[in-house]
Amino acid sequence: MKTLTTDVAIIGSGTAGLNALREVEKAGLSWLLIESGEYGTMCARTGCMPSKLLIAAAEVSHTIDHADVFGIHAKDKTINAQSVFERVRSERDRFAGFVVKSTQARPEEFRIKGHAKFIDNNTLQVDDHTIINAQSIVIATGSEPFIPPAFNKIKDDLLINDDVFELQEFPRTLAVIGTGIIGLELGQSLHRLGVETTFFSRSDQLSALTDPVVHSKAREVLSKELNFVFNSNITHADKSSSGIHLKWRDANDTEHSQLFDKILISTGRKSTLQHLNLEAVGLTNEQVRQEWNEQTAQVGDLPIFVAGDAAGHRQILHEASDEGRIAGKNAALYPNTIAQVRRTPLAITFTDPQMALVGKTYSELQPKNIEVGEASYDDQGRARVMNQHRGIIRIYANKTDCTLVGAELFSPRAENLAHLLAWAVQQKMTIQQALEMPVYHPVLEEGVRTALRDVMNKLKLTGNCRSIDLADAPGE
Amino acid sequence: MKTLTTDVAIIGSGTAGLNALREVEKAGLSWLLIESGEYGTMCARTGCMPSKLLIAAAEVSHTIDHADVFGIHAKDKTINAQSVFERVRSERDRFAGFVVKSTQARPEEFRIKGHAKFIDNNTLQVDDHTIINAQSIVIATGSEPFIPPAFNKIKDDLLINDDVFELQEFPRTLAVIGTGIIGLELGQSLHRLGVETTFFSRSDQLSALTDPVVHSKAREVLSKELNFVFNSNITHADKSSSGIHLKWRDANDTEHSQLFDKILISTGRKSTLQHLNLEAVGLTNEQVRQEWNEQTAQVGDLPIFVAGDAAGHRQILHEASDEGRIAGKNAALYPNTIAQVRRTPLAITFTDPQMALVGKTYSELQPKNIEVGEASYDDQGRARVMNQHRGIIRIYANKTDCTLVGAELFSPRAENLAHLLAWAVQQKMTIQQALEMPVYHPVLEEGVRTALRDVMNKLKLTGNCRSIDLADAPGE
Repeated sequence: MKTLTTDVAIIGSGTAGLNALREVEKAGLSWLLIESGEYGTMCARTGCMPSKLLIAAAEVSHTIDHADVFGIHAKDKTINAQSVFERVRSERDRFAGFVVKSTQARPEEFRIKGHAKFIDNNTLQVDDHTIINAQSIVIATGSEPFIPPAFNKIKDDLLINDDVFELQEFPRTLAVIGTGIIGLELGQSLHRLGVETTFFSRSDQLSALTDPVVHSKAREVLSKELNFVFNSNITHADKSSSGIHLKWRDANDTEHSQLFDKILISTGRKSTLQHLNLEAVGLTNEQVRQEWNEQTAQVGDLPIFVAGDAAGHRQILHEASDEGRIAGKNAALYPNTIAQVRRTPLAITFTDPQMALVGKTYSELQPKNIEVGEASYDDQGRARVMNQHRGIIRIYANKTDCTLVGAELFSPRAENLAHLLAWAVQQKMTIQQALEMPVYHPVLEEGVRTALRDVMNKLKLTGNCRSIDLADAPGE
Repeated sequence: MKTLTTDVAIIGSGTAGLNALREVEKAGLSWLLIESGEYGTMCARTGCMPSKLLIAAAEVSHTIDHADVFGIHAKDKTINAQSVFERVRSERDRFAGFVVKSTQARPEEFRIKGHAKFIDNNTLQVDDHTIINAQSIVIATGSEPFIPPAFNKIKDDLLINDDVFELQEFPRTLAVIGTGIIGLELGQSLHRLGVETTFFSRSDQLSALTDPVVHSKAREVLSKELNFVFNSNITHADKSSSGIHLKWRDANDTEHSQLFDKILISTGRKSTLQHLNLEAVGLTNEQVRQEWNEQTAQVGDLPIFVAGDAAGHRQILHEASDEGRIAGKNAALYPNTIAQVRRTPLAITFTDPQMALVGKTYSELQPKNIEVGEASYDDQGRARVMNQHRGIIRIYANKTDCTLVGAELFSPRAENLAHLLAWAVQQKMTIQQALEMPVYHPVLEEGVRTALRDVMNKLKLTGNCRSIDLADAPGE
C-alpha cells in the first residue's frame, strides 16, 4: 500500500471533477484525480450528446414522414439502423475523445485508478493499493441508473442509456420503463425511427413539468403519437427465447402482460455517494445531502465538497460544471469558502415538441403571489408555417413587483425560448420591460410576447405594480 | 366632389396604418382610413408570411436531400409544385384574411377608397371624389418594388415577390436580380425546390451584413450551394418565345448572355412618398425623410406623421408596427407629441444558415471603441449534431463600460440567437453579466457564450472595465 499526500483529492473525472481540477490548478495547489472507470464525461459518453444525435436522426425521419403537408413526397424511406448508430457512435466518440485526451494529457502520477473510500475526513483509500492524505476532498462521482427491483433477474438483458447507442439494429418492439427526460427523449426517437414503442410509468408524470395546464397539454399531444401505459406497476420481467415478457398491473389492479424484444430502463439516476463509505466521516448519505450547501458545494464545515450528479441537486450538465468549479475553488480555499450565487434554473427535455422549465417552477410558487400568462402554440403563426403548431407556454409574474419569475413550456424550439426567458428571469426583468424588447415577425418568440401581454392584462387588475402606465408599453 | 372632416386621416391600411388607427381610436378621436388597393398587410399578403411558407417547404426538401448523413435514405423525392404553392397560398390567405376581415369590420363610411394627394398640410384629395380636412395626417403608404431600368421593356413578364406565390409550376431556370433579403430568401428556397437559380448583383453584398468577417463567411458558405454572379451589370433583358434573354457585363466589362425561363426582381423596395404630391406642403420627398423624427414619427413640426416602409427607416414588420403606433398616438396628440424610445434594432434574413443584425452594426461602430468576440459554428457541438455546422457570429462590446452593443450572425437558428442578444443589448447587459446567464448543453446558445468569453478575454487586456474581477464569472 502506497501513501500519497496532496492538497486536494478529487474523486471522479467527469464534468464536475474536471471543472474542480481546473480551479485547483488555477489556485496553484497540488491535486490527485481518482477515477474508477473510463475517462470521459457521462454527458459526452452516454448522456446528452449521443441522445441528441439519435434525436437528430429521428427528426429527419419524422420530417420525411410528414413532407406531404408541404407538397413534397418521399415514399420509399428506408432507415439503415447500422448507419444511424454508426453516426451516433462516431460523433459521440469524437466529442468524448476530446475529454479523454485532455484528461490523459495530465501527468500520470497524479491520476489514480480505482475505487476511493473514506477512511476519515482527510484520508481516502483507493482499492487496496493507495492511501491518500488530502487537505480537502472533492466528491464528483456522478450518478448511476436506478433499476427497479422487478428487473433484477434480467439485468444483463436490459438497455440502459448508453446500451442503446451500441445497438446494431433496431428492436421490433421496445418497452420504455419511465417517462422522465431520458425515457421520453430516447423512446420518442426510437419510435420515430420505426421501433414499436410502449412507455410504462408508475404515475402519469411526463418529464419534470409541474404546471398542470402545460403538463396536460403535453400528455394530450404526446399521447397522439406515443403509446403510454400510465399508472402501471411492473410486477414481473422474464426472459424467454422469443423476447422479454413483462407483466404489469394497471390503475385498477388488473394484470396485463406483453412480450417485448427489448426493455429500455429510464427510471432515473441515483447519486453514487453510497459507494464511498461516508460513515467513516460520521455522516449518512442523507446527512451529506442535507448539509450540502449549493453555493459553496461544502458538506457542513467538513473539508469535503460535493459537485455534480453525486450531489443530487440538479442532474444537468451546466449545473455539474458550475458545481465542479465552486467545489474546486472552495476546496482550494478551505477552511475558507466563497459562496457563489447559482444561475437561474433551466431544464430542457428534447422531445418534439420540447419541454422546458425556467426559474421557479409552477409547483414552487404560491398561486396567490403570482399571475400566470399563457400562449397556445396550437395556432401560432410561425409554428403553423413550420407545421409544428402544437403546444402551450405559461409564464409566471410576481404580483408584488411585476417581475418574471419562471415559466414552463411545451412548444416547438422550447430550448431557444427557454434561454430567452431564463436570461430575463435572471435579469429580474419586469413584464413591462420584457414587452419593450424587440420581437421579430414571424417568429416563435411572438408566442412569448402573447404570454407576456396576457399576464400584463392580469397584472393591470390585481398587481401592486399596476400604477405603472402599462398601456404605454410598446409591445401592446 | 364630397368634403369630409375628421381628426386624423390615415393614408394606407397596412401594418403601420392599422396600428396608427388603433391609437387614434384609443384616444377617442374621429378618423378616416384611405386605401388605394386591396385590404390586408404587405407582410401577410406578399411579404414575410408567404416567404416563410416557401422556405419551410424548401427546408423539408433540403432535409430529405441530406438525410443520408443520418443513415436515412429517401431516394424518390418528388416535389409537386402545385401542392407546394397551394399550401403557401392557402396559409397566406388565412393569415391575410384575418387582417382584411378586421379592417372591413370597421364602419364603411370611415373607409375611403382611392389615391390620396396632399392639397395642403391639413387637406387631402382622394381621386376625384373626396376632399378630406384633417387635424393631422398619417402617411402609411408602404413601399413598392424598385425595378431596374434594364427591365422596363419586359415589366409584365417579371416575377416580383407575390408573383412568385401565384406560380402553378416551377420555372426550370430562374435569374434572381438582387442579393438582398428577399432575393436570397426566395432564391435559395426555389433552388432547394429544384429550380436552377442564378443570382445577379451589382456588388458582392449579401443581405445587410456589414461585418467583413461574417459577410465573407456567408459568401463562402452560400457560394458552395448557390450560383452568384457578383459585380455584374445587367444591360439588356429581352423576351423571346424560348424565355427571357439576359445580357450582362461582368467586373472586367466582358459581356455575357444567358436564357432564363423566369426573372425574379428583388432589387429592393422604395418608399411611395412620391405619389402623394408632398410638394403641396412645401417639401421634397428627401426633405420629408430628413425632417422625420423616428421617436415621434412627425415631419418637422407639421401635422404630418409618417410610419412604416413609407418612412424608409427600417423596412421591417415590427418596426412598422411600432412606428404606426407612435404616429397614431402623436397624430392624436398633435400639436403635442411624445417621443418614444425605439427598440434595439433586430433584422433577420431567413436563409440557411440564417443571417441577423442586432443592435449597432459593425459599420456603425468605431473599431477603436469596441472589442469583438467571435465564435465559429463550423465545428460547434450542437450544430454538428444537427448537421448544420456552418457559420460564424461576432459580437461587439463597448470598451468603456463592457456592455454588449451589437452583433452580426451567420449561423443555424440565428433568428433565435439574435433575440437573446437583442434583449441583452437593450438591457445594457455587460459581458460579465451575460456570462453569468444560464446556458444549457448541448445547444446553439453555447456558441454565443464562446463569443462572450472571447470578447471578455480581450476586454481584460484593454477595456476600461478590466478592474472588474472577470476571472470570477461563472461562465468561464
